[in-house]
Order: sequence, then structure tokens, then C-alpha cells
Amino acid sequence: MRDFLPEDVRRREYVIGIITRVYERYGFEPLETPAVENIETLLGKYGEEGNQLIFKILKRGEHEASGQADLALRYDLTVPLARVVAQHQSKLPRLFKRYQIQPVWRADRPARGRFREFYQCDVDSLGSSSPMVEAELCAAMSDALTELGFDDFVIRINHRELLTSILSVAGVGAYQHGDALVALDKLDKIGPAGVDGELANRGIEEQARNALLQVFLPPDPGDATPVGVLPRVAAFVTGDEAGQRAVASVQAIMELVAQTSAAGKVRFDPSLARGLSYYTGAIMEINVADLAGSLGGGGRYDNLIGMFLGQNIPACGFSLGLERILVVMTERNMFPPALATTPADVMIATFDASGAGAAMRLAAMLRATGLRVLVYPDPEKIGKQIKYADSRRIPFVALLGDDEIKAGTVTVKNLAAQTQATYDQSAAGAAIRQGLTQRG
Amino acid sequence: MRDFLPEDVRRREYVIGIITRVYERYGFEPLETPAVENIETLLGKYGEEGNQLIFKILKRGEHEASGQADLALRYDLTVPLARVVAQHQSKLPRLFKRYQIQPVWRADRPARGRFREFYQCDVDSLGSSSPMVEAELCAAMSDALTELGFDDFVIRINHRELLTSILSVAGVGAYQHGDALVALDKLDKIGPAGVDGELANRGIEEQARNALLQVFLPPDPGDATPVGVLPRVAAFVTGDEAGQRAVASVQAIMELVAQTSAAGKVRFDPSLARGLSYYTGAIMEINVADLAGSLGGGGRYDNLIGMFLGQNIPACGFSLGLERILVVMTERNMFPPALATTPADVMIATFDASGAGAAMRLAAMLRATGLRVLVYPDPEKIGKQIKYADSRRIPFVALLGDDEIKAGTVTVKNLAAQTQATYDQSAAGAAIRQGLTQRG
Repeated sequence: MRDFLPEDVRRREYVIGIITRVYERYGFEPLETPAVENIETLLGKYGEEGNQLIFKILKRGEHEASGQADLALRYDLTVPLARVVAQHQSKLPRLFKRYQIQPVWRADRPARGRFREFYQCDVDSLGSSSPMVEAELCAAMSDALTELGFDDFVIRINHRELLTSILSVAGVGAYQHGDALVALDKLDKIGPAGVDGELANRGIEEQARNALLQVFLPPDPGDATPVGVLPRVAAFVTGDEAGQRAVASVQAIMELVAQTSAAGKVRFDPSLARGLSYYTGAIMEINVADLAGSLGGGGRYDNLIGMFLGQNIPACGFSLGLERILVVMTERNMFPPALATTPADVMIATFDASGAGAAMRLAAMLRATGLRVLVYPDPEKIGKQIKYADSRRIPFVALLGDDEIKAGTVTVKNLAAQTQATYDQSAAGAAIRQGLTQRG
Repeated sequence: MRDFLPEDVRRREYVIGIITRVYERYGFEPLETPAVENIETLLGKYGEEGNQLIFKILKRGEHEASGQADLALRYDLTVPLARVVAQHQSKLPRLFKRYQIQPVWRADRPARGRFREFYQCDVDSLGSSSPMVEAELCAAMSDALTELGFDDFVIRINHRELLTSILSVAGVGAYQHGDALVALDKLDKIGPAGVDGELANRGIEEQARNALLQVFLPPDPGDATPVGVLPRVAAFVTGDEAGQRAVASVQAIMELVAQTSAAGKVRFDPSLARGLSYYTGAIMEINVADLAGSLGGGGRYDNLIGMFLGQNIPACGFSLGLERILVVMTERNMFPPALATTPADVMIATFDASGAGAAMRLAAMLRATGLRVLVYPDPEKIGKQIKYADSRRIPFVALLGDDEIKAGTVTVKNLAAQTQATYDQSAAGAAIRQGLTQRG
């Protein structure tokens, strides 16, 4: 887990600020939940591997010695949302769109862009099964990434029931679906022959393997009249009702997306599976070429809230991973240069301790104009004070010597331009503000 | 621990926003640390009671069954700061002013304004022993509370070494200082006779008791020529060098504060003790009449960083308690009425599923003008959709019927004024923005 020094925090706040503004434009409302949940709320929601990765908190006081845990750190933001809906249902609107940007904790092995404490930026729409929900989520993600400066991301979409249907039609037994998906997920990395071998190793018969590869392989680039991926998959599951419904759902979402700012960003990918077990419908994932993992992902989960509420509420959500976005933005140098890297607009320097009161008065006047003001607290040599301001990239230094204090003036030094001018103290704030504007 | 629904989050963000802006104006820079610290970092820093209140995290994996903890949740923001300074010293400036607004966790019994997860809003200045540091902290606290709308708070100030000096001069043995402070702390509640009894019960002799009460009692209101509290205490410790230094320090701070926006807000109170053991100099606390606890507090702690770094760095900090500020502001109804309580500026209603694409296009156009737009996702009866908008206090509804879609127009309903008008879709954003401005 990491400390964030001032420059890190400002970059994080910059990204969170843009994501928040986009989420608000889509009518999502903020929600925050505690870092700590009852352990029963979390256990069993993320699979066996997830259970292992949950940070568990010891009972307190006399029960501490038992070595037992009754609380745990939040593992994602979706399960707490489901708990909130069950717990506060009467206070929540029938259609509830919420965003939540908070840290989660997983006892995972750290890797590039993967940390044990990391922020998720979630949006979820509860209460509607309309494909407009998925389309709006894709548009919101696209707007957020575009405003951050990304122009090369792809949102891949698939459907859980379509995956099931394809596997069934291909002749893979229901008990082998999980194994088959793990193998198919590697198509990009190990190619068709590799996947075929993996499928064979997992006991899937040749006929099924051939059928699967035929569906999942990208169209032959030499084909003069290629059939799109979605029509090809639709033809494959044409005899299966659930599969047809899933195809229609994906088609409806993609047609609506074409009307939004995400037009051209969303691509159907029948091999997209996504790990979490609670998805029931459309699933989505965002990738860029220079990051192995995803920048975000989500999907429809119509049954999860029912586990807490005893009554299903249709739900669909999307999550952006703050840390991964920051990794890529840092590597690509995507932050605006103007992002504050200095603690103040102006530093007040004093010549001796007797000037401290005058420095405090001047600071109050400058702050009242909205300036960020650092008062150098010790009457050290002026050269040393100016050197400090320079090292912190503070653009202006206000010098308060005995003459200035007597006359009610202040000498303002522009460190970059190496110029200085003396002002009435009451006029110094405006002069510095103007100087800041000119610097840009 | 609590969930924060949208209205709660907006109130919290409002308060945090004001506090952050004030802290930035004083040249403080943001820092964030992980929720989880190594357990050794925290144990022994908050006294025996503190150790009990720390949430401890079980070891993971094969070590989980041991029942042992190796990590713990952050208990305050000061000890993590000291650790950060030791760990990242080469990357930090010689004078480091940081703010940190993050949650901390204590396994305490909940009470009014006291929760097990709560936010602290800390500022700390590291690297200077100047009284300007304390004076600036008082001014920053005063500005933050004033901008939040408080006008009746008092910042009390005292000095740890002055307390020690008073007790020594009064003849209280060093081993009885802790007991004596606990008793004197109750002066407001149980009166002089009560305190005298408590002091006697704790084995403090009559001569010492009388001397203490003489110093700590407020001046007799019938006295025609009352002596101020600070001169009276200064006279009492006149023979004790450490006491004299402490008096001079308090005097210097108060003279500087008089030059800031906190002038008139700071009062010397020789009975202020504050619990935490790491303070070494000035201590401060902020109170309002209608809250038993404090809104915030702080002080100088010149030795804490040395526990991590092996080398002392002078330090002084102040912390505002977000939860207590929110409790008082809620009870006093201090939030601006304009604080958003609606998820959107405008809701788009559609008459049937075939209008979904047109709704998405219109939403994208309106959002591009900066409006917050909710698309009602299901083509239910228009009356039901408008009722939903009304219940969520969404001021405008955009109606997209077949005629509007064909004509490229939209009918905008102002729910409060019960008026409506039809616009070209490209002009609707500006019209709604104007309507929002007129509503104020």
C-alpha cells in the first residue's frame, strides 16, 4: 500500500474530478459506504479465491484473544451497494443511479497497476432492465476517458447468456463451461492451436472444439465478403432461444450506443468472459493497447441484490480502475502541465522576528483575495528564504523589510522574470493575481 | 459505521470543499496515506486505552489460523504523517506543510458526533519552531469555521510546559501531575469545591490544592481591577524558568494571532490539558456552546517524528473533526438551500421504445452543454415518468414524442412553473440552462 505525496494527490484529484463531473452529467448520485463491512456480507460473494483475498479484522476487547474475525475490509463497491439497497430501500428512489469512488482492499500480489489498496470509480443503475441502461453506461465511460485525454480505448461487449448458449450449442457439457471459458479467454495470447490443445486437455471433444473455434476465430482477412462477428454468432445459436434473446439484447445495446458519444468505441467480442460470478446479462470491458489488464469493466447483475433483499432488482454497473488509469496517463504524460506542483502562489519573507506581525497581517490580506500564501516562519537570511521559494516553484516572493512595514508597502519579486516592484499592501493581491494570469 | 446516501455525501463534500480551499490558501499541500498501517507503527503511540481501540487485521493465507494481527487500521492522521516523514524524507521539503482529510477508525463506543469510522481534517507544519506556525494554524481554523458559517466558536490555548510548571510551583509531585490534571479538567462541570474534593481524594495536599485553585479559578466578577488570566499565571510561575518560557511562547502566539483573521477568537485557558501524550508545547482546542466535545484541537509535538526518524523535527498541527462539524451544522440548519438534492437538471421522457435512440441523441447534446441529464429508461406512461421527476425534484422534463422526433424538436416542461415550450433540439440546452438560472 502506498503513500500519496502532494503531487500524487493532485493527479489523483484531477482524474477523480473529471470522472465525477461526467458521472454527475449522467444523473448518477454520490454514495459512500464504510471501509469495514460485517464479514458475512462479503464471504461467499467473490468465489473461493476472493474469500482468501479479503482482509479480515480481529474481534475487539476480550474477544481479541479468540483470533476470530467479525469484520472485513470492503473488497469491491458492488456488494456494499447491494447491502445498502436492502438496508435503506425505503429511502432510495425506485430508479437509483449512484456513483461511488472509494478505495477497496485485496490481499493480492502487487503488480503493475495492481495494489492492495486501490480506488474503484463505480456507477450502477438499479431498477430497470432497459438496454438504454447499458448504452448510457458505455457512453459515460467513453466520455470520462475521452475527457481524460484517451482516444484509443475500445469497449468490448458480450453477454453471459450468449456465452452459455454458444457452449451448449457447440456440445460442451454444462459442467465443462468454466474450463472451456478459461481456455477460450487465452485465444489472443496462445492462438487457435494453443486453445485447441487446452480444450482437449480439459476433456472437450473434437467436434465441440472445432465448433467453438469456428465461432470464436476472427473472420479470415482474405475473405472477400466477410460476415460480421455478431451475425456469425447469431447464426450459430439460431436454434437456441436463450441465445437468440442474448443476441437481440446485444444488438439493441449496440444500436443505442451508436446514438451516443460512445459511437464507434464499442465492439462485440464473443470471447469476453469476465471473472465475477454475479453477472447475468451484458458484460463490458475497456482496454487500451499498452495495458495488459483492463481500464474498467462491468455488466448486468439482476440477481445480486436479491441475495440481500430477498427480492430481485435489475441492476447494471460499470467500474473504472483509478490506479490503472493513472499508470497509463503517467506513462503517456497525459497530465496538464498547469496541474499545481507548488504549495503557494506567493511566499512572504521577513527580515527579522519583529516583522512577524506585519507578515501575518499581509498574509490575511492576500488570502482574502483568494491567493494561496505561504508565510516563511523563520527570519533566516533573505537569500535562503528566496532559494526555498524557488525550490518549491513558488512564483512570487513578497519582501517585508523595515522600510516596507513603516510605509505600508511590500516589494513583490517575480522569481521567473527576475523583476520586482513595490506596491501598497492593499494593492499587492491584485498585482500578484495579474502576474499569475500572465504566466498562464 | 454509517452509509452516506446522496444528500449526506453532498453535505460532507460541501464542508470538505470549504476546509480544503482554506487549507490551500494557507500553503498546505495534500497528503494521503493508506488506511492500513503496520501494527507496530500504531501500537504504543496512543496510550494503553488507545491500543485497545485499534482495529487489528488478521494475517492472511496460511497464517490466518494463527489468529495474529500484523496490520491495523489508521487511528489518527498524525502518527502516519510522522512515519511518512521518516520514510520519504529525501522527497519532502525542509519546511513541509501538509493537509490530510481522510477517515480514521477507533473501536470506541458510539455517541453523538462520535463514530467508529470518522473523518479528520488535519493540517500540520513541520520544520519550524516559530510561534508564527501556531498563529497561522489558529487563523486557518478560524477561517474554515467562519466560511462554514460559524461565528460563535472559541479557540482556547494553553501550553504543556506551563501546566507542568504550575503543578510543580503549586507543590504537586511529578508523579501526581496526571491525577491533578484529570481533576482540574472538571472545573467547569463540578465547580471549585468539587475539584478540591477530587484533588484531596487523589492525595494532593491542602496547600497545593489552594494554590492550584487560586491560579485556575476565573477572576472574581466583583473585582474592580481584575488581573487578566495570563498575567496572573505568569506571576504564579515567575520563579520557574520553564514556566516563564512557556508564558512567553503563549504571549508571542497570541500577539501574532491578533494580526490575523482569528483576532478575538483565541483565549488563553490554563486548565486546557488535551489527552494525547505526544504534545510538547502549545495546545489548542475549539469549542462551541452547543457541543460537549470539541470541534477540533491540536498542538505542538516536537518529539514524535524523532520516534520514527531518529532525529527530532519540530512540528505543530491542528485537526478539525468533520463529523462533529456536520452534527452542529445539521442541527443549526447551516447548509445552503441550493446544495443539490436532485440527481439531474433535466429528465428525458420517451413515449415508446422506438424513441430510445432519439432520447440517447438528445441526452448527448444536452450533456455536451454541461447539463446533468437523466434518461428515464423505460417507456412507461408519461404521467408516471413526470411524477418520478417531480418526486426527485428534477426541475425540467424533456418530452420526446413521435412528432418531436420527426421535427427534430423537444417539448420542455418546467415542473415548478407548470409551463412548457417546444424548442429545436439544438436550442433546448440553452433554454434549460436559462430556466435554471432564473430559478436561482
